[in-house]
Amino acid sequence: MERKRVAIIGAGVSGLAAIKACLEEGLEPTCFEQSEEIGGLWHYTDDGGQQHGASMYKSLISNVSREMSCFSDFPFNTDTPPYPPHSQFHHYLQQYCNRFDLRKFIRFKTQVVKVQQAEGFVEGEWNVHTVDTGTDGTEPCQHVFHAIMVCSGVYHRPHMSLFAGLKTFQGTVTHSRSYRTPDRFQGKTVLVIGAGNSAGDIAAEVGLTASKVYLSLRDGVWILPRLTHGARPLDLSVSRALLHVPDFVSRNYIKMLSRTHINQANYGLHRTKDPYTHGFMVNDEIPYRLASGKVVAKPDITEFTPAGARFADGSCIDADEVIFATGYDVSFPFLDSDILPSSLQDQELYKLVFPVRMKKHTLAVIGQIRNRGGASPVVELQARWAAQVFQGITQLPDQDMMLGYFRRDRQYRDARFGPNKLPVVDLRYTDDIASDIGVKPSFWRLVLWDPSLAFHTYFGPAFPVHYRLMGRHSWSGAAAYAKTALIKTYSATCTNRVQTRHKVNSLMTVLLVCLMVAVLAVIVMKS
Amino acid sequence: MERKRVAIIGAGVSGLAAIKACLEEGLEPTCFEQSEEIGGLWHYTDDGGQQHGASMYKSLISNVSREMSCFSDFPFNTDTPPYPPHSQFHHYLQQYCNRFDLRKFIRFKTQVVKVQQAEGFVEGEWNVHTVDTGTDGTEPCQHVFHAIMVCSGVYHRPHMSLFAGLKTFQGTVTHSRSYRTPDRFQGKTVLVIGAGNSAGDIAAEVGLTASKVYLSLRDGVWILPRLTHGARPLDLSVSRALLHVPDFVSRNYIKMLSRTHINQANYGLHRTKDPYTHGFMVNDEIPYRLASGKVVAKPDITEFTPAGARFADGSCIDADEVIFATGYDVSFPFLDSDILPSSLQDQELYKLVFPVRMKKHTLAVIGQIRNRGGASPVVELQARWAAQVFQGITQLPDQDMMLGYFRRDRQYRDARFGPNKLPVVDLRYTDDIASDIGVKPSFWRLVLWDPSLAFHTYFGPAFPVHYRLMGRHSWSGAAAYAKTALIKTYSATCTNRVQTRHKVNSLMTVLLVCLMVAVLAVIVMKS
Repeated sequence: MERKRVAIIGAGVSGLAAIKACLEEGLEPTCFEQSEEIGGLWHYTDDGGQQHGASMYKSLISNVSREMSCFSDFPFNTDTPPYPPHSQFHHYLQQYCNRFDLRKFIRFKTQVVKVQQAEGFVEGEWNVHTVDTGTDGTEPCQHVFHAIMVCSGVYHRPHMSLFAGLKTFQGTVTHSRSYRTPDRFQGKTVLVIGAGNSAGDIAAEVGLTASKVYLSLRDGVWILPRLTHGARPLDLSVSRALLHVPDFVSRNYIKMLSRTHINQANYGLHRTKDPYTHGFMVNDEIPYRLASGKVVAKPDITEFTPAGARFADGSCIDADEVIFATGYDVSFPFLDSDILPSSLQDQELYKLVFPVRMKKHTLAVIGQIRNRGGASPVVELQARWAAQVFQGITQLPDQDMMLGYFRRDRQYRDARFGPNKLPVVDLRYTDDIASDIGVKPSFWRLVLWDPSLAFHTYFGPAFPVHYRLMGRHSWSGAAAYAKTALIKTYSATCTNRVQTRHKVNSLMTVLLVCLMVAVLAVIVMKS
Repeated sequence: MERKRVAIIGAGVSGLAAIKACLEEGLEPTCFEQSEEIGGLWHYTDDGGQQHGASMYKSLISNVSREMSCFSDFPFNTDTPPYPPHSQFHHYLQQYCNRFDLRKFIRFKTQVVKVQQAEGFVEGEWNVHTVDTGTDGTEPCQHVFHAIMVCSGVYHRPHMSLFAGLKTFQGTVTHSRSYRTPDRFQGKTVLVIGAGNSAGDIAAEVGLTASKVYLSLRDGVWILPRLTHGARPLDLSVSRALLHVPDFVSRNYIKMLSRTHINQANYGLHRTKDPYTHGFMVNDEIPYRLASGKVVAKPDITEFTPAGARFADGSCIDADEVIFATGYDVSFPFLDSDILPSSLQDQELYKLVFPVRMKKHTLAVIGQIRNRGGASPVVELQARWAAQVFQGITQLPDQDMMLGYFRRDRQYRDARFGPNKLPVVDLRYTDDIASDIGVKPSFWRLVLWDPSLAFHTYFGPAFPVHYRLMGRHSWSGAAAYAKTALIKTYSATCTNRVQTRHKVNSLMTVLLVCLMVAVLAVIVMKS
């Protein structure tokens, strides 16, 4: 029987996970990548691959720790530090390609210009039109595929807010997308606009050598560090046991962590919105920059003047440069908007992957999410699910059920995260998809099989490898790896191991034991 | 009557405090400064004033917060951030000079080459020989002074450890003294040696753009941040109430703070010695650099190889550059060693200021200390004391008593801080000198005068302004300032004040109340 052919659009993190998932399920993937290299935004070039939409600055360091950001069956090298710089993450993706021999399924320098349903769409087939980005003026090629995975990422069109008077401003205006190094800002007065990770990173870096950096925040900001107590990666706190903790506890825990990092009142950063629902900036350096006057926080801009800007509190500054670190808008120029609208508000995706109103579910959107944690494990699960659906191994519910689910989910998300944002997902989401494809770790099966593993899986950090412990395409090394991943976090930095370990804080032990008992009680009651 | 003439050697922080103290007591100061500007090491130049011994890198930020590092009667401007960069601290010193009109007492570009006791030393007079550093080959001038204040600082001769094979190493070897900016290390492999603040600052900065930075630590290191809970300056925890807390509590508190900043075991930093006695590195950025692999910790060096170095754990690295951030040796080339030996171990100084075995106490050493907190308040008190002694307002005990005190103090210091280190001083030391000159704030007098001020002075941070509340040359604005100094810490950064303050942590309140009750009980029992 002919193997089903799947077109994968983009060879970034999502695209690579998609190729691997297709191969696992016996599909025939073809990945179209407009640049000449894999990795999407993780492929750094000094010119920034402007034409390809990728964006990355030279100093970028992942804000997800290594063991939380790897694929489920392919660990990082031991020489990777807890938070890999972009070059090491890109190297990891290259090794992933080599290990699973993915590169031969990728057509580089090939841009997808149009994806259309084939005549009648009886079997759900698609016509894909591509052009060669290496040569000018070539005629588009047409290919026919059984299914499509859209893995084109979320960083498409730079988003720039329209402030009054911006056109009269005489300094230089750029978007964070074109930022590579702080060199050209040396000695200048720079205004950075935004409250996201890029805004924080750029302000902190430019602040080292600029004359002065102002950071304008519309609603203030909640800042979380990468490193918490003892310089432990913060994301290692994400654990299945916490799924049983009431929402207000997690909510207040995040606020407390942020306030411990920096008391907003003292540094001009007040935030009206909730960090749990409206997001936060991850940055380890901004508090020190603010405390040494290298970066000065400012409220929202009311208008630009020829020399600078005026802020909501009436203050005025002069600036040589303005950097908009105000994010990106999503776009799918190759798809008709009735299939996949660019406005997230108009998209109707079942569990953020399958457009609900299709006759045949042969198109999946991978990676249109923002995860609390690494993107890799989420997009990998989405891709595994999509591949199983395409192959007929897993069935989707009927359209009415999907639409019902979508509406409830949208309502829940709007209430929780506000509308018009890239959907935020967490462990609940990945566990749900894992459950649909039968790879969610079952507590009771783990207890019977390996109690220590059950303990690690439910009370330790929720590592991606947990989705390879059982079910289809499980990994024989997963159990052993899951038990040591926490220690492996420090494999590159633990260069001079102390003989005596610090005593465990007794209060922490008591709290941990209480939590364990409570969670066990909940699990027993539910089962 | 002729006013006593005092020679002050050096116009750094100590020298400026000395001029002011002399003027207050009606002495006639003449300050000799070998460079062309005030500020000592705080006077940054791109060439580093190599010939003058000053050393400062471009990015240096004070590691003492503004309100703890100012002179007692001259606050910082409101636009100074909590931790001033060197340029702002230097500007502060310039303003101090202007406010008290100190500049006219300074002879710039004048180097003191010899200080000798005048014939017979009957009145304790001194001959001071100076040369003009601006012109070559001038004959030394001789001046006669009634007294001398040695304010030449502690950063004289770069100290470099002699490692085996260093001469065979083919890369570049420099001392942190010549470090200005990270530019020339871009893309190189750099080995930084040392566990002090310079080592940390340089490794953290070079690590941003170098290919790799190794930080070699002989005994590991304890690292403390400038900023603790809520990005509050750590040194604001130094309070008179803590003087009544048992030593082991403070000792363990410092260890806990350091371990909260970075768990040494996970980052190759184990420390065998005690941070309370043997010191710590103040650095806010090293944990993040280690966690992102930009800086790698290494143990002690056993030998250099032509290409790099070998470490105590047997590992080997290649390096392009080696930076010795191993501190400085003190020297007093202008003084005979029988008056003031350069070796700290041979110095016999009464309360770290007056050489004990002098017939007449007309020579004072100012600033040969390392303070837990800013140097300014300590050297200012030393200078006030010395000026009063020179003027005969305060008497020193007889030589036997001073020698006895010195020996007990040395024994205490050796046991506590180990021998051969620049003496570490703390609040106990400054309160002791303040007590000698009658400016130590008295708890009971403050309670009767202004209970709220008593509360701030004993339970709040021990601000330098407390030494201007009572006694000679008190400052009428001191009481008002002492109550607001904590808030003034954030005067430059609190640019967008939140209406609602965060609720005080109730546990902290309980602890604070307990501490207050305990301290009050101790004070009542003692009085």
